[in-house]
Amino acid sequence: MHKLVLIRHGESEWNKLNLFTGWTDVDLSEKGEEEAHRAGKTLLKEGYDFDVVYTSLLKRAIHTMNFALKELDREWLPVIKSWRLNERHYGALQGLNKAETAAKYGEDQVKVWRRSYDVPPPSLKEDDPRNPALQAQFRDVPKNDLPLAESLKDTVKRAVPYFENVIKPTMAEGKRVLIVAHGNSIRALVKYFDQMKDEDIVAVNIPTGIPLVYEFDDNFKVIRHYYLADEEALKKEMEAVANQGKVK
Amino acid sequence: MHKLVLIRHGESEWNKLNLFTGWTDVDLSEKGEEEAHRAGKTLLKEGYDFDVVYTSLLKRAIHTMNFALKELDREWLPVIKSWRLNERHYGALQGLNKAETAAKYGEDQVKVWRRSYDVPPPSLKEDDPRNPALQAQFRDVPKNDLPLAESLKDTVKRAVPYFENVIKPTMAEGKRVLIVAHGNSIRALVKYFDQMKDEDIVAVNIPTGIPLVYEFDDNFKVIRHYYLADEEALKKEMEAVANQGKVK
Repeated sequence: MHKLVLIRHGESEWNKLNLFTGWTDVDLSEKGEEEAHRAGKTLLKEGYDFDVVYTSLLKRAIHTMNFALKELDREWLPVIKSWRLNERHYGALQGLNKAETAAKYGEDQVKVWRRSYDVPPPSLKEDDPRNPALQAQFRDVPKNDLPLAESLKDTVKRAVPYFENVIKPTMAEGKRVLIVAHGNSIRALVKYFDQMKDEDIVAVNIPTGIPLVYEFDDNFKVIRHYYLADEEALKKEMEAVANQGKVK
Repeated sequence: MHKLVLIRHGESEWNKLNLFTGWTDVDLSEKGEEEAHRAGKTLLKEGYDFDVVYTSLLKRAIHTMNFALKELDREWLPVIKSWRLNERHYGALQGLNKAETAAKYGEDQVKVWRRSYDVPPPSLKEDDPRNPALQAQFRDVPKNDLPLAESLKDTVKRAVPYFENVIKPTMAEGKRVLIVAHGNSIRALVKYFDQMKDEDIVAVNIPTGIPLVYEFDDNFKVIRHYYLADEEALKKEMEAVANQGKVK
């Protein structure tokens, strides 16, 4: 049996401002830092330990990982960072307010961009400074792999092969893996693990800072999954995420 | 030409208390955190950038690295942690006060333990909880490699092959390397780089939190080395380190 733990980073400065973030490298808010510490404390209390940690190239995930590992006294663990675990790229919407965008384009259009499986938001222009190909942060990623906008489907296409080719072989060796990532990169993995339909995954909300455990058999078939939190806390977190796109 | 930057971690809680630390996993003091930020700011100001970072398994080095990378906005860089860059293992002296040890055994004996090249301090007993072979932190290191005490010579024997086999090939590929480590693991590398005699390296004091730059030609012969700090600050830091073993 293989256990995998996934954590969605805590609230960021831009979650708080209700802005589309995507690959914008914003930091955690104070609440987000607390969520990260809480995630680490929960894992410690439940007796979890890990051999290797995977995270994205974005600091809200890296900091969440750092705080969680600090609580676990596991800062010495090997950490592997990959752009393939980054949040979905939100294209030209990055930096726009979710409620304002909803007021301008209508809630339905925003819902399509946020919750459709294969409709990407408007693309960045090549010469936009937000183009990842122009940013130091992604200089080691092959230029052709870097997006100007992504649908969830696009995120699945780059996150799932990373799980298949890198993380799964590590788990198959018996290593205990922690992934600290983002709403949509975790959603991409969850879709794959549970073989969910396109229309079903878009309705799944991953709460922030709450460890999500997947148990697999030796053929990597999912046995079950569960959150390490009480029902009440979980419901509250999920509703908060689901409500972000509404006009206020 | 290859440039390598080395940073000794900032002041730790136990440096402040004047205790022998070795592999004890103590955190940075507030001053140590400031030194780490300062090191990052200096590198930023001087226009340094890196492709990969190496550090030890000890949190005072890992945190120094985290703070320096934060200042450089390079937290997304790949980081590789190895016990081979750990501080010298101080054996049974770990946890003892340097001034008290000097008062008890005499300044000369402490100087031998601190500053001889090949005399290790008294060894830990196998069943001592400080034995690294009994600690989770070093569970991935082959048991036979783990020391119960080390002389500087022993530290050279495990740090230099790591440079030769892992770091040097990375630099040879053209990657810009930052090493964040400890007084004696850096001393071990400096001895090797500058082909220093055993009796000369023991007199070298590496200041904390001040980037040390080595320039190598294509055959990895040292061209020159220098600290990124003004003379005054440097002299003060070095004297502070040299005075730690004196009776107060």
